[in-house]
Amino acid sequence: MGIADLSAIITEIAEEMRFAEVRGKVADYIPPLASVPHTKFGIAVVMADGSLHTAGDAEEPFSIQSISKVFALTLALGAVGDQVWKRVGREPSGSAFNSIVQLETEQGIPRNPFINAGAIVVCDVLLGRLEPREAIGQLLRFVRELAGDDSIAIDETVAWAEQETGFRNFALANYMRAFGNIHGPVERVLGVYFHFCALAMSCRQLALAGRFLMDGGRVGAHRVVTERRSRRINALMMSCGHYDNSGDFAFRIGLPGKSGVGGGILAVAPGVASIAVWSPGLNPSGNSHLGQLALERLVQKTGWSVFEPRG
Amino acid sequence: MGIADLSAIITEIAEEMRFAEVRGKVADYIPPLASVPHTKFGIAVVMADGSLHTAGDAEEPFSIQSISKVFALTLALGAVGDQVWKRVGREPSGSAFNSIVQLETEQGIPRNPFINAGAIVVCDVLLGRLEPREAIGQLLRFVRELAGDDSIAIDETVAWAEQETGFRNFALANYMRAFGNIHGPVERVLGVYFHFCALAMSCRQLALAGRFLMDGGRVGAHRVVTERRSRRINALMMSCGHYDNSGDFAFRIGLPGKSGVGGGILAVAPGVASIAVWSPGLNPSGNSHLGQLALERLVQKTGWSVFEPRG
Amino acid sequence: MGIADLSAIITEIAEEMRFAEVRGKVADYIPPLASVPHTKFGIAVVMADGSLHTAGDAEEPFSIQSISKVFALTLALGAVGDQVWKRVGREPSGSAFNSIVQLETEQGIPRNPFINAGAIVVCDVLLGRLEPREAIGQLLRFVRELAGDDSIAIDETVAWAEQETGFRNFALANYMRAFGNIHGPVERVLGVYFHFCALAMSCRQLALAGRFLMDGGRVGAHRVVTERRSRRINALMMSCGHYDNSGDFAFRIGLPGKSGVGGGILAVAPGVASIAVWSPGLNPSGNSHLGQLALERLVQKTGWSVFEPRG
Amino acid sequence: MGIADLSAIITEIAEEMRFAEVRGKVADYIPPLASVPHTKFGIAVVMADGSLHTAGDAEEPFSIQSISKVFALTLALGAVGDQVWKRVGREPSGSAFNSIVQLETEQGIPRNPFINAGAIVVCDVLLGRLEPREAIGQLLRFVRELAGDDSIAIDETVAWAEQETGFRNFALANYMRAFGNIHGPVERVLGVYFHFCALAMSCRQLALAGRFLMDGGRVGAHRVVTERRSRRINALMMSCGHYDNSGDFAFRIGLPGKSGVGGGILAVAPGVASIAVWSPGLNPSGNSHLGQLALERLVQKTGWSVFEPRG
Repeated sequence: MGIADLSAIITEIAEEMRFAEVRGKVADYIPPLASVPHTKFGIAVVMADGSLHTAGDAEEPFSIQSISKVFALTLALGAVGDQVWKRVGREPSGSAFNSIVQLETEQGIPRNPFINAGAIVVCDVLLGRLEPREAIGQLLRFVRELAGDDSIAIDETVAWAEQETGFRNFALANYMRAFGNIHGPVERVLGVYFHFCALAMSCRQLALAGRFLMDGGRVGAHRVVTERRSRRINALMMSCGHYDNSGDFAFRIGLPGKSGVGGGILAVAPGVASIAVWSPGLNPSGNSHLGQLALERLVQKTGWSVFEPRG
Repeated sequence: MGIADLSAIITEIAEEMRFAEVRGKVADYIPPLASVPHTKFGIAVVMADGSLHTAGDAEEPFSIQSISKVFALTLALGAVGDQVWKRVGREPSGSAFNSIVQLETEQGIPRNPFINAGAIVVCDVLLGRLEPREAIGQLLRFVRELAGDDSIAIDETVAWAEQETGFRNFALANYMRAFGNIHGPVERVLGVYFHFCALAMSCRQLALAGRFLMDGGRVGAHRVVTERRSRRINALMMSCGHYDNSGDFAFRIGLPGKSGVGGGILAVAPGVASIAVWSPGLNPSGNSHLGQLALERLVQKTGWSVFEPRG
Repeated sequence: MGIADLSAIITEIAEEMRFAEVRGKVADYIPPLASVPHTKFGIAVVMADGSLHTAGDAEEPFSIQSISKVFALTLALGAVGDQVWKRVGREPSGSAFNSIVQLETEQGIPRNPFINAGAIVVCDVLLGRLEPREAIGQLLRFVRELAGDDSIAIDETVAWAEQETGFRNFALANYMRAFGNIHGPVERVLGVYFHFCALAMSCRQLALAGRFLMDGGRVGAHRVVTERRSRRINALMMSCGHYDNSGDFAFRIGLPGKSGVGGGILAVAPGVASIAVWSPGLNPSGNSHLGQLALERLVQKTGWSVFEPRG
Repeated sequence: MGIADLSAIITEIAEEMRFAEVRGKVADYIPPLASVPHTKFGIAVVMADGSLHTAGDAEEPFSIQSISKVFALTLALGAVGDQVWKRVGREPSGSAFNSIVQLETEQGIPRNPFINAGAIVVCDVLLGRLEPREAIGQLLRFVRELAGDDSIAIDETVAWAEQETGFRNFALANYMRAFGNIHGPVERVLGVYFHFCALAMSCRQLALAGRFLMDGGRVGAHRVVTERRSRRINALMMSCGHYDNSGDFAFRIGLPGKSGVGGGILAVAPGVASIAVWSPGLNPSGNSHLGQLALERLVQKTGWSVFEPRG
């Protein structure tokens, strides 16, 4: 597929999404998310050759929310390696993103690092001997490096609002603490967690930050993680990236991906493309409705599904 | 990778597996499975160019059990299309293969077609206006055609033993019947289900039968299913092919796959290879221990994971 | 309280219930139950002195359904004693009458003998070396003796209809069989179970049959069970007699009781009275709406709650 | 039964318990409980005539823990009446005392006021417009009045230790807060809760404080609650007083009762006696092993079970 073709394809998709009538429901549990217009739609694609293609509101920063769980996991694996897997599983949860039920039957071990409970454990791992502010700074620097863009920032208004309303996350963290699977003080761990969720990035920045997963762990000549680790993070995104909608995402789109309640999705076509879409209206599972639809269109037109033979 | 290389690789893997000490636990709930020696190991790989490579006990038929769920689903999709998805979901279950809990909370709709409850619904779909013997004959013909091998047969001893001890499956079927999600008489539906599970195939036959999923829905010039359907079946195998071990299989191996309690696994590298492995010892989730290990070795050496950039 | 007073009380209650507007919903899963007019209401009270007081439709036989679980348990305790408790628990289930969830987590041991699963185990115990027809005959004779009324019969239309639609019960029985907690063939055990549920009795007959629980295990000079066993059956009725509505029944009425989906309730005021009420409209938990209300009125006026100091 | 007889009975029981070999396991989650010698056993009985009978360590204060939930509920019902039941149920939970599972499926409404989650809601109700210190003072005054003993105190060491280790309770409270069923700040509500649990009372004091439940809501001439409310609290203690062991307690003992993890049990024979027993070793459900055994002996010898006909 030529580069002109791809630009045409994503322009066409952005156009379709601009006029879509069913747009999902914008998250309203905190004011900074509730106030985002549901008319927004952006898409950015970075190809293996480094070319970048955008359409719609691709330059507008949004709250990446749970997409940050991918970057946090990558850092934690870098810090303690496979020790992470002693404290968090690798299986889809079959439950909502904030379910607490499985923690009771499975003794405080979350199913995977991409549900809230698992990401809270990842934050606790990252804290280790760091101060919260150091851990937050570390993630911010990491994402800026990955995207090659120092303007990426954390939205403190969002972080604060999460903190104010995050009772379920306080419940999850305290519950895991009771099982000994959170080591640090709950307030500190959640302080880090809420700041991670409050990362604000545009589709362009997000697609750039996802390049290392497209390219076997490298960004250009720079190795971020081993090829094996890159493959495994992709696998986790495929299995667990969309809460109790993960199977359907694999079925319809067939790419590793991670969604956030801000309406963003990062998807990876290994060896081919790093893709970011954003539209704030969510489906009942908490994933961007138009974002998923846009990705479905994209893979239909490009044949990028990992489940398809490649030419 | 040259063909000579691949043959060397699988010979080496078969050799390693032959001497492995930890071999898992052979299923013992019915005598015909319990009597299979745990020393067995076979592997067969069919490449996109049609070449076939085998090692170990690749010619010995074994009970494919739940791997038959892939073929049954393919037939059911051919018969009624996406109507199937009104009666069975597409999400990983997060539970054991024979769990009944989710049926209660989710009103008799099984999570996916690769757990027992889901496959029983698929059998009910296939029965439609057919007699049980016709439905069984249909699947047998389908698998023989896919493999190009008319010697494939159903092991009546296994089918009978399943019937005798299948109380959980009777429970599942009756339970779904209570919710109206089984239409035919339970005995007839399960008769078909138990015969499907009793298909006996060798690794060679199974790898050949899996070619259509490797090749975008075709076997040579013959189209079995559309490219889209092929892709989607692969996606389901990735998300749900190994019960509550599916995430770990994706993480370690990164290929769509389906396991059976007889110790077989069918795995697909889209566009590249159709792979069957067999070793009867199971891990605690009911998947072949050495089969998974062999596949892990294979993808390490070949780079066939769908989560890896391809050259 | 004088006998004239009691007759006035129950006449007044029957009058109130005759004109009640909210009457609950008549069970409609089988035609013989669905066709019972929701206008029916009956009440019968047998006092410790042997006097009998009735009002409303107290002479009309109805399907006692799950109330038969009390008589079946009494027989099973007589047959094998405390061995029963190895196969069924004594705790409230906190779930609906036909829930299967706890059977999975608790390895096929039902919570108590008054939910369906537990009563099916009780039937299996009773079958022991008996033929189904013998077990059914045994229960019928037992209830006739308790009530001193040989006209009590089983409604074969109901038994047959239960059999035809009892998929959940088939699921429960097969499921417990898978755990080894049903020993006999499922069809035979359920055949007995469905016949027990199909016992037809009037309020008068039912109140008479309950006398042994009022009187420490005796009917007049005849000892049916030991005093201790009588006390314990009463305790089970208090804890578990109304499914997931048992706590509320204790809270509002304060008597051991057992309800059936036919709209009957047997309640016991130890040392004071045996009470039967009947009105076919059910509340959402499957217990007679007016039956509970009538009992609530009765204990308000008489002070018969076991939780009240007695003069 | 004469008073001399009762004194003989409880002396005999205390003697048996003193030499019992199986004594259960002392709670060890906080040091102040872990350090209580498992040799302790005390019993106190207050009869309707006001006479008091004690044996063993009946004068030694112990941590009444969850028994305080009875007094807290009584106060909350006094404060807001049946409004309490909009925020907490009246059904046995069928789960452990600190389970969080049902809160998820039942939208933050705890099953009953005698499990932790329910009692935390009760504390939130009591806080209303009070300061924590006022609410704590209110409960302390109430218990002192009930027992007629101003020496009853709260053990601050216990309250503090609960606070330090109460992660599960923090999880429960935050979780219910997420559903809007906790109104005040979690720290304040739990501060009250932990102080309530830290009430220290002797068997004598506890039996005296339970008199109002024996005597239809009165203590002598003083009415504490209405007769109806007294009856209902007794009913709740019968249904829900011993966590997932409540059914067995009713079966074996047949009295309304409430246990605490400190090894105490308050039991009520309506119209007859208020009983307190204490022995710190617990059974697997968290109820005093010897305490239950002692009560079983007592009702066998006295016939005080509410399920027994009274003379």
